[in-house]
Order: sequence, then structure tokens, then C-alpha cells
Amino acid sequence: MEPYELTATQAASLISKRLLSCEELARSTLSRIIEREPIIKAFRFFDPDQVIRNARELDQTAPKSELHGLTFGVKDMIDTKDMPTTHNSPLYYGHETNKDAACVAVVRHRGALIVGKTDTVEFASGGRMAATRNPYNLAHTPGGSSSGSGAAVGDRQLQLAFGTQTGGSHIRPAAFNGIYGIKPTHGLVSREGAKQYSYSLDTIGWYGRCVDDLMLVGRNFRIMDLDEPAPTTLKGLRVGLCRSPNWAKADQWGRAALMQAARLLEAEGAIVFDLDFDDRFSKLNHAQEVIMKSEGRSAFLPEYYAGNPAFNGYFVDIVMNSQGFTKKDLLHSYDLAAECRVAFDNLFGPELDVVLTLPAPGQAPEGLHTSGDHVFNAMWTLLHAPCVAIPVGLGDLGLPLGIQLVGPRMSDARLLEIAKLCEPVLDPEPGKLKLVTQDEAVTFS
Amino acid sequence: MEPYELTATQAASLISKRLLSCEELARSTLSRIIEREPIIKAFRFFDPDQVIRNARELDQTAPKSELHGLTFGVKDMIDTKDMPTTHNSPLYYGHETNKDAACVAVVRHRGALIVGKTDTVEFASGGRMAATRNPYNLAHTPGGSSSGSGAAVGDRQLQLAFGTQTGGSHIRPAAFNGIYGIKPTHGLVSREGAKQYSYSLDTIGWYGRCVDDLMLVGRNFRIMDLDEPAPTTLKGLRVGLCRSPNWAKADQWGRAALMQAARLLEAEGAIVFDLDFDDRFSKLNHAQEVIMKSEGRSAFLPEYYAGNPAFNGYFVDIVMNSQGFTKKDLLHSYDLAAECRVAFDNLFGPELDVVLTLPAPGQAPEGLHTSGDHVFNAMWTLLHAPCVAIPVGLGDLGLPLGIQLVGPRMSDARLLEIAKLCEPVLDPEPGKLKLVTQDEAVTFS
Repeated sequence: MEPYELTATQAASLISKRLLSCEELARSTLSRIIEREPIIKAFRFFDPDQVIRNARELDQTAPKSELHGLTFGVKDMIDTKDMPTTHNSPLYYGHETNKDAACVAVVRHRGALIVGKTDTVEFASGGRMAATRNPYNLAHTPGGSSSGSGAAVGDRQLQLAFGTQTGGSHIRPAAFNGIYGIKPTHGLVSREGAKQYSYSLDTIGWYGRCVDDLMLVGRNFRIMDLDEPAPTTLKGLRVGLCRSPNWAKADQWGRAALMQAARLLEAEGAIVFDLDFDDRFSKLNHAQEVIMKSEGRSAFLPEYYAGNPAFNGYFVDIVMNSQGFTKKDLLHSYDLAAECRVAFDNLFGPELDVVLTLPAPGQAPEGLHTSGDHVFNAMWTLLHAPCVAIPVGLGDLGLPLGIQLVGPRMSDARLLEIAKLCEPVLDPEPGKLKLVTQDEAVTFS
Repeated sequence: MEPYELTATQAASLISKRLLSCEELARSTLSRIIEREPIIKAFRFFDPDQVIRNARELDQTAPKSELHGLTFGVKDMIDTKDMPTTHNSPLYYGHETNKDAACVAVVRHRGALIVGKTDTVEFASGGRMAATRNPYNLAHTPGGSSSGSGAAVGDRQLQLAFGTQTGGSHIRPAAFNGIYGIKPTHGLVSREGAKQYSYSLDTIGWYGRCVDDLMLVGRNFRIMDLDEPAPTTLKGLRVGLCRSPNWAKADQWGRAALMQAARLLEAEGAIVFDLDFDDRFSKLNHAQEVIMKSEGRSAFLPEYYAGNPAFNGYFVDIVMNSQGFTKKDLLHSYDLAAECRVAFDNLFGPELDVVLTLPAPGQAPEGLHTSGDHVFNAMWTLLHAPCVAIPVGLGDLGLPLGIQLVGPRMSDARLLEIAKLCEPVLDPEPGKLKLVTQDEAVTFS
């Protein structure tokens, strides 16, 4: 097994025992990247010399945490002090800030090896798509906007990577690339130094190749403290199966993946039941759109005023409020979201441990002109709820399918513990996804 | 009259008519700053050559807006591409980012002359105080954390300046320095590129020397569009006089200023009545503290991990959650705030046009070890409500006293129009504040 194939958790163990050096891991990673980059195009920037230099320096340094030497990618709308941050926008080509974003600073201070900048949909929003291809089927998108981070981890070019989510930009690429991802509770991880789109939605998340990888990073962000013991077995775990108000938008493969996961959990003793929401929740996706676009007006105002003709019309439309959202629309959306956050959190307790739902409508769509639909993500982002993506199988095109688990706000640690219970059942052979069984007619008691 | 003495609005008029050049204004401003800086210490950075160079360049350029050539100061926790951003923290001395914060980019693109970085309480939070003195009484604080911006505008060293508010850091210095200030609705102005303390509270605001100055800047941030016509006369204006749940913390001068303002507005035909809030609102100041400190945990985590011994213990306490706030405390605070935002906004309509309340307990306290108390600000910040500070007179120590007007969320344009109606009544001789009449026993019908 080549070092690049190790999960973050496996590599951390070897590095701590001095059985693997940071430089060895870096060199293996770089050869994988150099081999695959021409095909996958996950990166907007990486400098092999810099990576080796930094890895050597880490080998000379006492480890500060279990992140020591692990390979970490950074979505290219998150600032890094030693690499350009282009946002995949001609306005920022070659642009260097002299400062790490808060999330990058945290993992760098803890010893992670920052390998490069991963491709993104322009400003993690719209406009230019990433050039990245899906490693499972090159004709398909890896999802977006965290396209490069998702594909690089899915293609084992990186162990860990940051993405962001404003609509569904983090969880959807996790599903499309067969990897694990967490979008933490909004506000729990500092978003400073990442390009702002919508201040009340933008959330930093990270990808890994197993739940332990997500937890490893989570400990360094100090979000792993539990208020009370987490469940220790699937037996009796109360799982709310949420087809969501948008079930009609899911295709047969997306549905099959969800149903297979539900059946597998039920077979282990979990209590799976249909979870429906009241009418207010069906308005959340629209509210998310209103908030995202309305807040985007001020976020992109500086670029608009800069007057560069290369500024994409997509963003001009946002600044000019081409959808005509009113102040009343915005306030109504804010207040509906706040009300639903309380209602959603209140569902949890003796009757409900976790929500099981779709991370995307199905397999990654064909073509690089799209990054997929966030219809199964927008609501959770707006609810500020933590979401964890888990891969569960493949569809007919050989593309991955996943599920997402959702918990109430601030339950990130508990949600990851629950994800860890589900992992061996839903993804029994890590890295070897199998065709999902199509049988969506099953109902659960 | 020297150019530096002109309000932004007056200077804009002269510049547009080519009766004043940007360089003339810049030179006059610089001589004022150079004369006063040794006494007031409002700045952490200014480079006279750079200012002259930029002013000359503006003189060669067609104006993009009425901001053309106007002098603008930037609180030193807001990034500027051509000046250091130190946050008044030893961790960032000499630190330069290569990028303007969004708010700076907006006014720079529109032609404002960025003059320098103004002193701030460390990270606009706590720890090191600013070195700035109150221009009205050097033994007293100018308030904080926007200390230098408030004092520089109050001392006529700058026409306009950015401050920020997380608790009461923007409106309080306005009151202490006898100037005008607006803290817009939270989220309406991008906060990107300003050091984050509390993502759901931090708000960029600006200072000027009259309401027109605040509006001039507001137009460039595109927050001046009205949904319906604003009131055009004080006659019949429904003014809710809010002593706030913390009235006991106001001193005789703070109270007198508020009462004088209420009487003056009533004399012009405004309908002033006592506005009381239900019990939920009395818990908002505590909720603001819980949110600010809890969100600060992730905001300062990178600096904490950097392990620099110069990192102030004040921030270590925040990161370590020394006050022991729980996740439940935080969620309860978020949800209470959301509930009160709706309740507050609903007060407005036929029965209420504007809230009139205190911006601070009284005159600026003595000493530079304090920046005053945010007890009369925290609630409004948490409500995300727009606030406008107006100077109304002097107290017995020769220090300014003000009031603040508060409106419902997203009513910034209307609130400024109301402030403009109040201005000639409350501050009849701009720049010449007079002793406030002490008579707090008056009641209003």
C-alpha cells in the first residue's frame, strides 16, 4: 500500500510511531497528484518543492497534534498565506493574500501539510465552473462548488480537504465522489478568510475517507465535546427517514441508496421511521435562495464596483438583485428559518436520534457545465444543522451514491459518533463501493 | 475655514465643482493630523506621502461617486491592501494583507481617500486598550473599541471613518466624541476582511459629522433605497422613548441628554411616549454576552494555537470558555434573539416610527484603561437593528452627550431620513455643542 492510500487516521498513527515520515507521505502524495492531475484537474495550485520543504520542516518539528504531516487541500476561495487564492475568477488570478484563513491557520498550526488549492465554482457560488472531473467517471461533474476538494479526496490525492457550503456545495460533492464529509453547525468553525457569499449560510466543512478522519479534524477545531454520552450501538437508535419535501426531485438511484441505507440500519436494530415536516419546512429552500442571493448583494459589491469587464454576469445579477427580492422577503426568510431551527431541534430527544436523508438527487450529472442540484441540501444549510455525508454504493454509471445524517444544532460531536456507528454497516469495505440494490417500495415500521 | 473642517458633504460639493482639489483637502487633513496626533493618538498608521500620492491620482481621475477625494479612516482591525493591519495586537504588528476588506474596497473603488488606520481596542474586543484620547477632554477615553475612528472624526482629523460594533463599539464612541454614526442592519454591509469576533453580531458602521455624511456613504453601500416614502416632518412622528431595561445604569448626564432630546422633538410636534419592552427583552444583554463570547471561541482559535506568548490572556479566556457557557446557553440565546427581532420589528408601524434611546450611560469615563460600558448598545446589536447616533450637547466635564435612534431591521434608509429631520432640532449648531439641561423629571404624554 502506498502512503497516499492511507486514510488520515492510519497515516497519523504511523507518523506518531515514526513508521512514516512526513516527507515520505508528501512524496507519495505528490506522485499521485502528478499522475492524476492531468486527468482529474482537481487543483488550481500546488508547488511540489514547497510541499516537500514544508514536509521536511515538519519532520524536524515535534508534533503538535495528530494532524502532524497529514495532507490537506484548501478550496481556492479560502485564503492561504503562501499560495495564490483565485476564487476561480479572472479578477483574482495570481492573487496572494499574506494571511491564512482561520480554518487553514488552525490546521497548519496543528501540523497539517497544506498541499495545494483545489478548484471551485467561481467564488463558491456560480459563474465559472471548476475544470475538475469526477474520478469515478470523467464525463461527469464531481459536484460543486467544492469540486476539487471532493474529487481530490475521492481520488486519494489528498487525505483531507476543506470545502464550504452555502447551498449544498460541501455535502453534494462528498456524495458524488464517494467520500465522507461534515458540514458543521453554522458558526462553530470560523469562516474568516474564506470569500463571503452569504454570511448567515456560508459554512466551512472538511472531507475525509472515513468518520475517524472527520473526527480527527473535529478535535482540532474543538467541536468534539459531548454534553452527554453518545449512543454506543445501532440497536434502538431512532432514525428519522426523511424523503424531504423534494422527494420528487430524487432519481431512482438516489432513492435506492437512501432506502438501502435505511434497511441496513434497520437490520442492525435501528428503529427507522418516516419523518415528515410541517408545511413551514417546505418553504425553507425558497427562503435559503432569498437569503443567499440577498446577502450576496453586499458580498460582491466590491468586485462589482471594481468595474473589471471579466466580472461574471452571474454576480452582476446578484448585485443588481435581478430576482427582485424585497426587504420583506428577506426578513420573512430570516424569521421563518429561525422558527424552523427551533422546531427542528425540538424533534430530537427520546423520539429521534438522527435524520437520515439524501445528500443529492442521485449520481453526479453528466457534463462539467453543471455541479448538480442543491435541492436536498439548502434546507439543512439554512437550519444551521450539522450534516455528515457517508458513501453507500454505486449507481448504474459507476458513480457513487451516499446518504447524509443530520442532527440538531451544536450536536456535531454526537452526530459524528452516530455516523461512526453507521459506517461499518453502510460502507463495509472502505474504498470499495458496490452497486446499490434498487428496491424503493419498502416501508418501515 | 480650512478644508479639513468641511463636512464630507460640503467637501464633496466643492470637489465636484472643482473648487477644491483632492490634494488640497489631503494636505489640509494631513496638517491637522500631524498637529493633533501627538495629543490625540487616533492613528496606528498613516503615511503622508502615500496619502498625497493617492490624492494626486484622484485629481487625475474622473470621479466615480460623490465620495471622490473624501478623507476616510479605517479601524485597524479592517484589512487594507496598502497599510498594515495590526488589530492593536503584538501578534500582528507590521502585518500587511494584500487585500482590502470589502467595506474598504467599496469606498476606495468609489473614490474615497483612505488616510490611515485608526487605533482600536485589541481585536475590537478586549485586552489592550487604544492609546487614543478623547479630543474634548484628554483625561478621558474616546470610547471603544472604535476609539481612533471616533476621536479622529470628532477632532476633525477625518471626515469619515469605519468602525465596528459587536457590543457597543461603534455607537458609544460616536456619543463620546460628539459625532454622527450609523451601525446598519446586521448583514447589510459585508464584514469580510474585518477581524471576526462574533459572526452573528459584528457589524461595520461609519462615522461622519452630520446625517448627510452618513447618507452619502450609505448611498455607496446601496442601503438608501426606501420601500415607501419616509416621514417628511417631525410633526406627528411617533417616537418611542426607551429608557431601556438598564436605565439604572445611566448617570444624570446621560439621562438628561435623552430627556432634552425628547422634549425638543416633542416641541416640534413629535409624539413622544414611553416605550417599554416585555421581560424577554431584559434578557437580551445577557444573550448578547453569551453569543459574543461563545462565537469568539472559534474566532480566536487560530491565534490561540499560534502559541505566541504575547497573545493576551483576555482571548485565552474566551477560547477556553472561562465563563462556562454551554451549548444550550448559546442556542437559547440565538433563539431568544430571533424571537425578539420579530417582536421588536412588529412594534413599528402606525404606532411607532422610531425608538429614541441612550447611546451610552453618560459622558465618557475618565482614564484610558476603560472604553466605557456597552450596556445601552448590546441589545440593539443583538436585535440586528439599525442605530444612528446624534450628538445633543455637553456634560459638566465638557464631554459630549448623544442619543441614538433605532429602527426595525432593514429600515436603514428610513431611519437616516428620520435622523435628518431630528438633526437641526437636536444639534442646531453643528460642531458647537452646548451644556445639556438637567431635568429628567419630565414625563411625556
